Amino acid sequence: MHTSFDTPELIRRTLAGERVPLARAISWVENEAPGSVELLDACFEKSGRAFRLGITGPPGAGKSTLVTRLAQEYRRRGETVAIVAVDPTSPFSGGALLGDRVRMTELSGDPGVFIRSMATRGSMGGLAVHTAQVCDVLDAAGFQRILIETVGVGQSELEVAQTADSTAVVLVPESGDAVQAMKAGLMEIADVFVINKADREGAERASFAIRSALELRAHTAWKIPVHLTIASQNGGVSELVDRFEEHLVFLRETGTLEERRRARLEQRLQDLLQARLWNAFRERVGDERWREALAELAQRRRTPHQAAELLAGL
Amino acid sequence: MHTSFDTPELIRRTLAGERVPLARAISWVENEAPGSVELLDACFEKSGRAFRLGITGPPGAGKSTLVTRLAQEYRRRGETVAIVAVDPTSPFSGGALLGDRVRMTELSGDPGVFIRSMATRGSMGGLAVHTAQVCDVLDAAGFQRILIETVGVGQSELEVAQTADSTAVVLVPESGDAVQAMKAGLMEIADVFVINKADREGAERASFAIRSALELRAHTAWKIPVHLTIASQNGGVSELVDRFEEHLVFLRETGTLEERRRARLEQRLQDLLQARLWNAFRERVGDERWREALAELAQRRRTPHQAAELLAGL
Repeated sequence: MHTSFDTPELIRRTLAGERVPLARAISWVENEAPGSVELLDACFEKSGRAFRLGITGPPGAGKSTLVTRLAQEYRRRGETVAIVAVDPTSPFSGGALLGDRVRMTELSGDPGVFIRSMATRGSMGGLAVHTAQVCDVLDAAGFQRILIETVGVGQSELEVAQTADSTAVVLVPESGDAVQAMKAGLMEIADVFVINKADREGAERASFAIRSALELRAHTAWKIPVHLTIASQNGGVSELVDRFEEHLVFLRETGTLEERRRARLEQRLQDLLQARLWNAFRERVGDERWREALAELAQRRRTPHQAAELLAGL
Repeated sequence: MHTSFDTPELIRRTLAGERVPLARAISWVENEAPGSVELLDACFEKSGRAFRLGITGPPGAGKSTLVTRLAQEYRRRGETVAIVAVDPTSPFSGGALLGDRVRMTELSGDPGVFIRSMATRGSMGGLAVHTAQVCDVLDAAGFQRILIETVGVGQSELEVAQTADSTAVVLVPESGDAVQAMKAGLMEIADVFVINKADREGAERASFAIRSALELRAHTAWKIPVHLTIASQNGGVSELVDRFEEHLVFLRETGTLEERRRARLEQRLQDLLQARLWNAFRERVGDERWREALAELAQRRRTPHQAAELLAGL
């Protein structure tokens, strides 16, 4: 596992879909290793074929099990599948995470499935960028369906979900969840709603509540389905895959797929440029002048606007 | 209410703590109105006296009631209080929000209390900036305690909470919440933990779970308290205010307050500069060249890195 690759070889073997080089390539991307720009350039050129599906929802909605079942169903249909599990990690959540991953062993041993966990290091903004890049690598390596699993509770996790072509929001039947989903802004990003653990009480009621809320929206060409599943018993999973594939057809036929991907690329370009601009600026200003500016702020000798004005003029 | 102010008058009367000008000043800040920079500069110079308290936690934890009770307790102790309620709004959540705010009427009519709701418009990043600025205005207007209430579930809401000097994380006794808190990264930002609705089953157990998790952390000078409240019956509220005030003393005596405020100012300066850099850059590039770059990306004739390289060279 600890073979060392030179960049051209890593690129060649990653694009050929070899698992060990692929895993290494993803690590390069996550760690922004020296060869990663060259690698990403090569992968970007070959990407755009995979259908990227975001699966998001609150903790405890059973996303991990559902994603496992979805992968199995896609395999049954002959599609290769990559799973990217994005976790807003804290030093304390190691245990819970591990438990989730253990379930994924059901999928191990199948060369048509590739699973990767990504943890937040530093900012969530960085995570969204890395997630998009890792999806490019998996796409270029030939995986046909990429399932991006995130804990969707805040704006930044939504950003991760929005690296997808289509997004499913997974809830449980308990009352209040629908309201929570609306509060958290999940309503705006869902292409498909899933009520998982639908053998629990209140599934129909939750489904009705969401459908009612959806009807308040402006009429859209895509009628957002609200679909019930019992992932632990594989209930409703095949039908859910049907919904996803219907959405893919819709996205393609209406030009929405191209439009969404274009917006995503614009965001990526902006992120890259903003990082460059900032780094160049901070180098120009230098540490001493920066520290001085902060001291002046702390002593209220200058306001943030005045300090920005001054530094921007340099 | 629809009086129009010129900038110097609005500034003067806001700093004097007059309510109508103050409300107008906050709107200026939220809308980035023409006089807002001048206003913010004037307020910044007079700010730094208020103690800013972040109150965050998942939806349904009873934050709104708790904040109302905290404000009442502070009033009993002779402190003036401003409440900034930050809501990640969706078009559908108007109802729930309204319900929360109605409870705030208990506080209306007291000139020592000022309440303001802020909704997300556009990015959460922008909301964090505006929240910090609104707190400066309230601080300059003479409010002694500023309670910043946010629905704390994602990274970006944490940013809002981090505009505070001290942060309380509010949970309910139900099992799983403690684990959720850890997952969502709330563990890292809490200076005080509150288990609200502590008359419900499991409060002691939840408190124990959090205390156990906290013990796994590196030893810190401030021992994070886990405090039980029943806000609806005013239970434990006065003692919670004691905890906050103890933390304020700790922050002051150890220099942590100055350190935290310095870090916050650095972030604000960086946000301002990054926005300036980006706007200047986009103007330099122009819309036509930007559209061309996007088209090249969409057609995979250039990679994001190559496009960034090219545009950055302009």
